[in-house]
Amino acid sequence: MGPPTVGAAGRLSEFATGQWGAHLIGGWTADGWIELPRRLGGRIAPLVGAHADEVTVCDSTSVNLFKLLHAACDLRPDRTVIVAAADDFPTDRYLVDAVAAQRGRAVRRIDPLQVAVADLADAAALVCSHVHFRTGRLHDMRALTATAHAAGALALWDVAHSVGAVPLEFDGCGVDLAVGCTYKFLNGGPGAPSFAYVARYLHGDLASPIAGWLGHAEPFAFAPAYRPAPGVARLVAGTPDVASLIALDTALDAFDGVDLAAARAKAIALGDLFMTLVAEHLGDAFSLVSPSDAAVRGNQVSLGHPDAYPIVQALIARGVVGDFREPDVLRFGFAPLYVRYVDVFDAVAALAEVMGTDEWREPGFGIRRPVT
Amino acid sequence: MGPPTVGAAGRLSEFATGQWGAHLIGGWTADGWIELPRRLGGRIAPLVGAHADEVTVCDSTSVNLFKLLHAACDLRPDRTVIVAAADDFPTDRYLVDAVAAQRGRAVRRIDPLQVAVADLADAAALVCSHVHFRTGRLHDMRALTATAHAAGALALWDVAHSVGAVPLEFDGCGVDLAVGCTYKFLNGGPGAPSFAYVARYLHGDLASPIAGWLGHAEPFAFAPAYRPAPGVARLVAGTPDVASLIALDTALDAFDGVDLAAARAKAIALGDLFMTLVAEHLGDAFSLVSPSDAAVRGNQVSLGHPDAYPIVQALIARGVVGDFREPDVLRFGFAPLYVRYVDVFDAVAALAEVMGTDEWREPGFGIRRPVT
Repeated sequence: MGPPTVGAAGRLSEFATGQWGAHLIGGWTADGWIELPRRLGGRIAPLVGAHADEVTVCDSTSVNLFKLLHAACDLRPDRTVIVAAADDFPTDRYLVDAVAAQRGRAVRRIDPLQVAVADLADAAALVCSHVHFRTGRLHDMRALTATAHAAGALALWDVAHSVGAVPLEFDGCGVDLAVGCTYKFLNGGPGAPSFAYVARYLHGDLASPIAGWLGHAEPFAFAPAYRPAPGVARLVAGTPDVASLIALDTALDAFDGVDLAAARAKAIALGDLFMTLVAEHLGDAFSLVSPSDAAVRGNQVSLGHPDAYPIVQALIARGVVGDFREPDVLRFGFAPLYVRYVDVFDAVAALAEVMGTDEWREPGFGIRRPVT
Repeated sequence: MGPPTVGAAGRLSEFATGQWGAHLIGGWTADGWIELPRRLGGRIAPLVGAHADEVTVCDSTSVNLFKLLHAACDLRPDRTVIVAAADDFPTDRYLVDAVAAQRGRAVRRIDPLQVAVADLADAAALVCSHVHFRTGRLHDMRALTATAHAAGALALWDVAHSVGAVPLEFDGCGVDLAVGCTYKFLNGGPGAPSFAYVARYLHGDLASPIAGWLGHAEPFAFAPAYRPAPGVARLVAGTPDVASLIALDTALDAFDGVDLAAARAKAIALGDLFMTLVAEHLGDAFSLVSPSDAAVRGNQVSLGHPDAYPIVQALIARGVVGDFREPDVLRFGFAPLYVRYVDVFDAVAALAEVMGTDEWREPGFGIRRPVT
């Protein structure tokens, strides 16, 4: 999870007093709240290689994934299977299972490194995380999307762990549908609203199962029957959560003018340095869970150790905030906009110090499990 | 929409610096973020006459209504119809239509003042707003819930316009399912997260269509298959939106120790005073859209006028913030925790002043439509 940008506290305070308190419902127009899903979608669009009108910000990643899985079934009514990456992030797995059951489709789990056109012959969609949450493995979005298309399936990507970290080219790769998280590399804050992407060519046939009033073409006409707004605007269900959208708006300021390719190059250098220093100072104390080849690794390096959980806790106590992932993984993120090379040296020094003490071996150390 | 409480700006700022910035992912445990849906549900429970474990806070009202409509279909699998109040708030209408189509049920629209047991004989649920968004009409929750039960149907209430305004007795009335909004009389801020209520006796059989990872019994076990958390906790789909939940937590402080019956009595007196003063100073310039009988009126008074929209805009320019509702309604809320009797006199004086000028008759005045 990314930290707050320098403006976050001030913008949230100013929102409460200068907007909400000053304008009450007038803020929906005077302060542009009603435009936030569309406007922030437009700000995220260049980070994912999309047109502004292909992205909207609303709800959580889980809820948006639910919508797009249903939308995929509607767009491919004759296809009987949803094909999904095995061992994907839990919410992706659970929602694929749930929506498949709701729509009478079967689920086929595949290894994204092995999937072939034949595996997708009866598929409505191929659903896959771009960067694996535990291992940091980066999948080939262009090639996998092309494989899905060759079979007549849609490609639905979850870019929670790559947006803001790895340059993305949704339009260039022909991606059909995607969801992403704004509180990891985009620094929107804990539980900040998610975004959804739908390629323009699908806008006319796009359906949202959650036909909420703010996804209506004319919400303030209070019409008796639902008529969807154009394009991705129909994915907005209920009233947008303004405080969180304002925190995200502030966070996105940090990406103005950033060359994501240069940022990615720095992140790779940081991760490579980390692996080199760990090997140098800690020998074989840890296994390497992430690919050593940066070309297939996101901006994270995961290490394996049977005592991963207490070690992560001891590091956090020293100000090095990584996280633990079941069953035995230490996950370190290298966010190039604020992590410096010196921080990598300090982190490995802290790790060496922790491994040289017995504190984390004591019974009950860090007994509460962390979350992200 | 309610105003910010005095602590809102400070708490949001402190959240950004003292929690998010200081603890990063550690905030999920150190600052109790992960407990917010459950803990805030417990704070809302006494306002709706529920046990703490019957309420959770997450997502928007639209998304929660979607979940509970699906849950009602699962709980009454042999019932072929969803019965819903005609002319209800748009999102309620649209979502009833959408879920009915998704679940192969018919929709029957009824007038809540006329509905009989026979109208519900084949119904999975009776879906109704407690206070009508436009007219302020307050329905008889106890009687309508009993009617639904006499027919074997569930009662699903939307209390967006009554929670925090009218004392509610979900458990006492035998309500089965309910959703509510926290940014009207609860002052949680624009688009603040919604709450969902499910009566204890249904917890074992409750299913959420949006099987997100944080509704799992053990989310941090990252188990391959979905297993729902106990009770209403399974309604939490994705990661909770912390900034907005903290603003809501602050807002709920204002309800600590409040006698809602006394607050309701004051709100009735405020509304009655408003109607008396309007009749006295403005004669028959406006029609009365709300019931004059406070026993069947929520904490709002709606007036009708062909030029309702520009009149509302002219009032807002004078600091009297009501809202407009299509086609010709001026809506005034009487929130007893901060609206004073003198404010009612001032509001009617402002209304009389507006009606004595021609400013709101000018072409283009207040051309942009407000939202709430």
